[in-house]
Amino acid sequence: MAARKAANQLGRQTLRFAEPPFVAASYAIAGPVEGAGAFGKEYDMVLEDDLWGRDTWEQAECRMFEEAVRGALQKEEIPMSRVDCLIGGDLLNQIVSANFAARQLKLPFLGVYGACSTMAEALLLGAAMISGGYFSCAACTVSSHFCTAERQYRMPLEMGTQRTPTAQRTVTGAGCTLLSAGVGLVQVTLGTVGKVVDLGVTDVSNMGAAMAPAAADTIFAHFADTGRSAADYDLIVTGDLGIHGSELLRELCRQKGLELGKKHFDCGERVFLPEQDVKSGGSGCGCSAVVLNSHLMAGLRSGAWKRVLFLATGALLSVDSSQQGESIPGVAHAVVLERRG
Amino acid sequence: MAARKAANQLGRQTLRFAEPPFVAASYAIAGPVEGAGAFGKEYDMVLEDDLWGRDTWEQAECRMFEEAVRGALQKEEIPMSRVDCLIGGDLLNQIVSANFAARQLKLPFLGVYGACSTMAEALLLGAAMISGGYFSCAACTVSSHFCTAERQYRMPLEMGTQRTPTAQRTVTGAGCTLLSAGVGLVQVTLGTVGKVVDLGVTDVSNMGAAMAPAAADTIFAHFADTGRSAADYDLIVTGDLGIHGSELLRELCRQKGLELGKKHFDCGERVFLPEQDVKSGGSGCGCSAVVLNSHLMAGLRSGAWKRVLFLATGALLSVDSSQQGESIPGVAHAVVLERRG
Repeated sequence: MAARKAANQLGRQTLRFAEPPFVAASYAIAGPVEGAGAFGKEYDMVLEDDLWGRDTWEQAECRMFEEAVRGALQKEEIPMSRVDCLIGGDLLNQIVSANFAARQLKLPFLGVYGACSTMAEALLLGAAMISGGYFSCAACTVSSHFCTAERQYRMPLEMGTQRTPTAQRTVTGAGCTLLSAGVGLVQVTLGTVGKVVDLGVTDVSNMGAAMAPAAADTIFAHFADTGRSAADYDLIVTGDLGIHGSELLRELCRQKGLELGKKHFDCGERVFLPEQDVKSGGSGCGCSAVVLNSHLMAGLRSGAWKRVLFLATGALLSVDSSQQGESIPGVAHAVVLERRG
Repeated sequence: MAARKAANQLGRQTLRFAEPPFVAASYAIAGPVEGAGAFGKEYDMVLEDDLWGRDTWEQAECRMFEEAVRGALQKEEIPMSRVDCLIGGDLLNQIVSANFAARQLKLPFLGVYGACSTMAEALLLGAAMISGGYFSCAACTVSSHFCTAERQYRMPLEMGTQRTPTAQRTVTGAGCTLLSAGVGLVQVTLGTVGKVVDLGVTDVSNMGAAMAPAAADTIFAHFADTGRSAADYDLIVTGDLGIHGSELLRELCRQKGLELGKKHFDCGERVFLPEQDVKSGGSGCGCSAVVLNSHLMAGLRSGAWKRVLFLATGALLSVDSSQQGESIPGVAHAVVLERRG
C-alpha cells in the first residue's frame, strides 16, 4: 500500500473543507435552570420544567432533540425535505434520544457518539459530507438532560446527593446547527479529529480534569497541522471543561508555551451564573450545543468574532468501565467557524 | 436557501464514492462458539475462551477490538502510522470497547453508534471520508461480545435464563476493514444512509422482527436512488436478522414485488450451525463484522461474487427505553462492495 496524502488533509488530524458549508440555521432549547443562566435570553426556547409535558425525563430529552431540528428549520423557513441527513447523538445509553428523535423526523440518520464532544464531531462530519458533495444539507444535533444523566451516570435525584466542588451539572438542552452547501455568512472551514487521551484520572466527579488533556492535545494538533497559532483566532472555545478543567487546560497549554488568556472561552464555565451554585459549571453535550447555537453563533453573525476554534470535549467512560477500575479517557474534536468578509 | 443536489448524491439517501477506496486489509476475530460455527475456519483468529486473559468480559471485548485493527495491519504489513482515522463503535453503553481500544491505538478516532448496523455505518463514513480526500486510510472496526451484551441488555449469565425461539445470540467477535485511497481489488463504490423505521415491535427477544422493516426500507431506497435492482447484485447481505427476521425481510420484499430468493444472505442466519442450537441465529455488530471480514471478503477477492450489497441492521433500543414502554426502532445502512475486473 503506497503512502499518500489525502487532498483535503492537513497534517494527520485536520481536514480542509474545500467547499465550506455555511450555517443555514441554528437553534438552542434549554431547561429552566439554564434559562436562568448567563445566556438565558439568547436561547430560542427555554422550558418551564424538566418534563416538558412528557411522562419521563428521557422522553422530554428526546422531544428537545426533535424540536431543536424542527425549530432550526422553522426559523429559516426551510422544509424538512431539504435536509439530507441528521447527524447526532446524546449521552444516554445507545443514544436513544437521538434514535427516537430520528424516528419521528423520518430523516436519513447517522448516529455518532463522542460523549460531550458530540456537537463538534457531528459538525465535523456534517461539514465533511457536504464539502465532499454527499449531502447538500445536514442537521447536526445533540442533546443532554440533567435528570436523565443523573439517573444513568450518578445517583437517583431523589437522594439529593451532595456534590463535590469539581462536579459539574449536566446541561438540560439541545442544539441544532443546520449546515448547507453554498455560500453564507458563517462557514465551517476546517475540522480536527481528536485522539483519545488518558492521563489516568479516575475521579468521576472531576470530568474537567479527565477532558482537559484531550482539549490541549487537539489544540496543539490543530496548530501543528495548520501552521496557525492562537493569534489566528478571535476565540478558542471548549465545550464543558468547567471551572476546574478550564484552569487545567490553561495550565497544560502554558507548560507548552501557549498562553490562552482571554481568548479561551469554556461553555461549561460560563453557562451558569456563579450565584446558581452549580459547583464547577455545566457539562453534557447539550452544554456546548446550546451556547454554540445561541451566543456564539450570534457573535459570529454580528462580527464580534470573525474566526472561532470550537472544540467540544468528551469523557469516554461508562458506569461499568469505572466500576471495573478503568481511568477516564477523553477526546476533543474541533471545527473552525468563520465569518465571511 | 436554494435547493440543490449534491454532486455525489443519488436520490436522497445514496452516496457515490467518486474515487472509491479499496479494502487494503480485513481481519476477523471470533469467540469459541463462533469458531465452532459455519465460518470458523475462515476467521483470522478464534479465541479459546471468552475472557482472553483479561479480568472481565468487557476488557476482553476491548482487546478484541484493538487486536482486530492490529491484526489487519500486520496481515498486510501496513504500519500504524499509515492509518489516518479509526472509525467504529460497539454495543456497550457509551461504546466503551471502541473508546478504550482507541486510547490504546493512539489513532484519531470518530465514534459511531448504529447498534448492530455499526459495521456498515463505519464503512460508509470511512469510504466517504477517503473518497472526499480527507483521509488516505481508515480503519473501520466494530465489536460485540455475548457475555458483555447479556450482562448489559438481558440477564446475568449465571441465571441460565431460557431463551425464546426468536432470540438471537450476540456474536463474540470483532472485525476490521482497512479502507485505503487508491486502486485495489475490492472497492467500496456506493453507500446508502438508512432511516429509522419502527413498525411497533416491542418484543426484546425478537430483534429480527424489529430490524427487518429497516432492512427492507434501505434496500428499496437503494434501488430507487440508483435505478438498480436485485439483478445487479450477486449477493444482498444483511447483518443479523437471524432466521425469523430474514423470513420477515423476504416477506416484506415479496409484498413489494421483490423476490430475494437465493440472493439473500443473512450473517446472523448463517454464522452458527443448526446443531449449535442458538435459536434464531447470531446478532450483535460483531456478527456482520466477522462474516464480512472473512467469508464475504474471501468470496469477493476470489471472484465468487463480483458485486455485493452489504447492509447491517441495528435495533435502536436501550434497556431504559424498553422499560419505559417504547417500541424498538431499527435502522439499516448499506454499502456496495465490488470486485474490479
